[in-house]
Amino acid sequence: MPDEVRTLPALTKEGFEAMLAESMPQVTKSGMRIDAMDHGSCRVRVSPDLHMARPGGTLSGPTMFAMADLALYGAVLSMIGPVPLAVTSHMTINFLRKPALKDLIAEARVLRLGKKLAYGEILLHSDGEADPVAHATGAYAIPGHRPAPGGAGG
Amino acid sequence: MPDEVRTLPALTKEGFEAMLAESMPQVTKSGMRIDAMDHGSCRVRVSPDLHMARPGGTLSGPTMFAMADLALYGAVLSMIGPVPLAVTSHMTINFLRKPALKDLIAEARVLRLGKKLAYGEILLHSDGEADPVAHATGAYAIPGHRPAPGGAGG
Amino acid sequence: MPDEVRTLPALTKEGFEAMLAESMPQVTKSGMRIDAMDHGSCRVRVSPDLHMARPGGTLSGPTMFAMADLALYGAVLSMIGPVPLAVTSHMTINFLRKPALKDLIAEARVLRLGKKLAYGEILLHSDGEADPVAHATGAYAIPGHRPAPGGAGG
Amino acid sequence: MPDEVRTLPALTKEGFEAMLAESMPQVTKSGMRIDAMDHGSCRVRVSPDLHMARPGGTLSGPTMFAMADLALYGAVLSMIGPVPLAVTSHMTINFLRKPALKDLIAEARVLRLGKKLAYGEILLHSDGEADPVAHATGAYAIPGHRPAPGGAGG
Repeated sequence: MPDEVRTLPALTKEGFEAMLAESMPQVTKSGMRIDAMDHGSCRVRVSPDLHMARPGGTLSGPTMFAMADLALYGAVLSMIGPVPLAVTSHMTINFLRKPALKDLIAEARVLRLGKKLAYGEILLHSDGEADPVAHATGAYAIPGHRPAPGGAGG
Repeated sequence: MPDEVRTLPALTKEGFEAMLAESMPQVTKSGMRIDAMDHGSCRVRVSPDLHMARPGGTLSGPTMFAMADLALYGAVLSMIGPVPLAVTSHMTINFLRKPALKDLIAEARVLRLGKKLAYGEILLHSDGEADPVAHATGAYAIPGHRPAPGGAGG
Repeated sequence: MPDEVRTLPALTKEGFEAMLAESMPQVTKSGMRIDAMDHGSCRVRVSPDLHMARPGGTLSGPTMFAMADLALYGAVLSMIGPVPLAVTSHMTINFLRKPALKDLIAEARVLRLGKKLAYGEILLHSDGEADPVAHATGAYAIPGHRPAPGGAGG
Repeated sequence: MPDEVRTLPALTKEGFEAMLAESMPQVTKSGMRIDAMDHGSCRVRVSPDLHMARPGGTLSGPTMFAMADLALYGAVLSMIGPVPLAVTSHMTINFLRKPALKDLIAEARVLRLGKKLAYGEILLHSDGEADPVAHATGAYAIPGHRPAPGGAGG
């Protein structure tokens, strides 16, 4: 996409981090970090950590699900602004490879933004590696009233 | 099923708890408890806790996913005995209702046990309430070599 | 459930068949038949047929998907009455066993009926056999205006 | 990918069409056509047709599922050569928009090819339109013995 028609995100990385710190402190404590946000996409990063370990020493499935869920939440909010009451409606995750003992990255993008439901996909891969570790798809339900686009994201 | 033909689980509740304490201490620390295990089924319980909270004060989606994943793991191991390297292959979760501020219970049952893959479903509901809070389906990949049925569950 | 509190379906088997014959003749032509309908559940049956065959001689995956989709549609309409514009929102299907060369049966039940979305599961098995051939879960989106419950089902 | 390192498909479009005509004549009769095949990807096309219609005049959900399933089958065989006994293991489909009354196109790509299981995603869109109509993910189980890569695709 040419730079000049790029749409600004309705919620910035900094705005999303502030929102998480206030309304979901457990996310911040979990070690998941917001790496990047653009209009319709969001990248989440986590470093391997003992308390997430599974037999074999890698990040657990539930941790990967939490990353996918958070990345999709960010991608949706990047389009509609901060809506704390948006909730996951359904999600499917396929685990494809054992993750390396490196940072794990989840990249979400919205494939459809409707009035009530936003749907997207999330690709998880180890830092610097192309092969996906997991792939997820899911939807967020968007509650009725929402702030004007971009209004609260700054 | 009449009691007299009931198959004993290949891994008991106590055996599963011991296995988790040793190989997945983060599960034990998470507050998830094994409530019951039978041949082909497993029930996991968690009490609401601040660090799991979402806006609105309820258990988060990732916590429910972790419960579903653990309950299905237990249900699979109840049929094949303790196989620490069984890993989740894929899972789909649908969130149906906001959970009450009560204990949340995940009940898993295996619908098909193959040589390489076990498939099952998990129903999550608030303690004492019939309506499901979430419903999940998923599969565990079973590694090649496994202990004789029942051999390591004691 | 005791018989005396049983809720009548908002759309009967005969009403559903008439609705399909009028608005979805391709379903009737496909060989899928409505076997039973009750409040919140529906059973669809199909006999093996050459045009559905896969290598190995069994019903194809897409045919099983079509059965699951139709059975869930019937189960939803059994609760809300005939709403032709209800459409599938998402569906997950897991194929568990090769079906026998017998009638295949899909049994759907609604797990949650919301105002906008109905969610349920579907179990497929060969006639007279307990082991499931496939298992599906999915949701139907319900359009805004709908007839009064039971109003059009007769 | 630069053209000079492009991997040839282990099964060509013509080879796949011949294989379908022989072993799955119902696919050919259904009106689904193979549009393109490359190593790891496959595109399937279908023209709107009365017998596929739903209320509102569009392609039905089961037809879209059948397209997604066939496209993923092609994408998998483009990597492993003609393996008629590869079967769908599981699939999730999300319906995003009402398709236009135009040709519908399903584009599949493999995200992971393992020894026993191949996983991929499929995007469906109306001809000439960017917005996806549906999105699916799924896996094919690959039977034990298979022809040497590329050996039978000609």
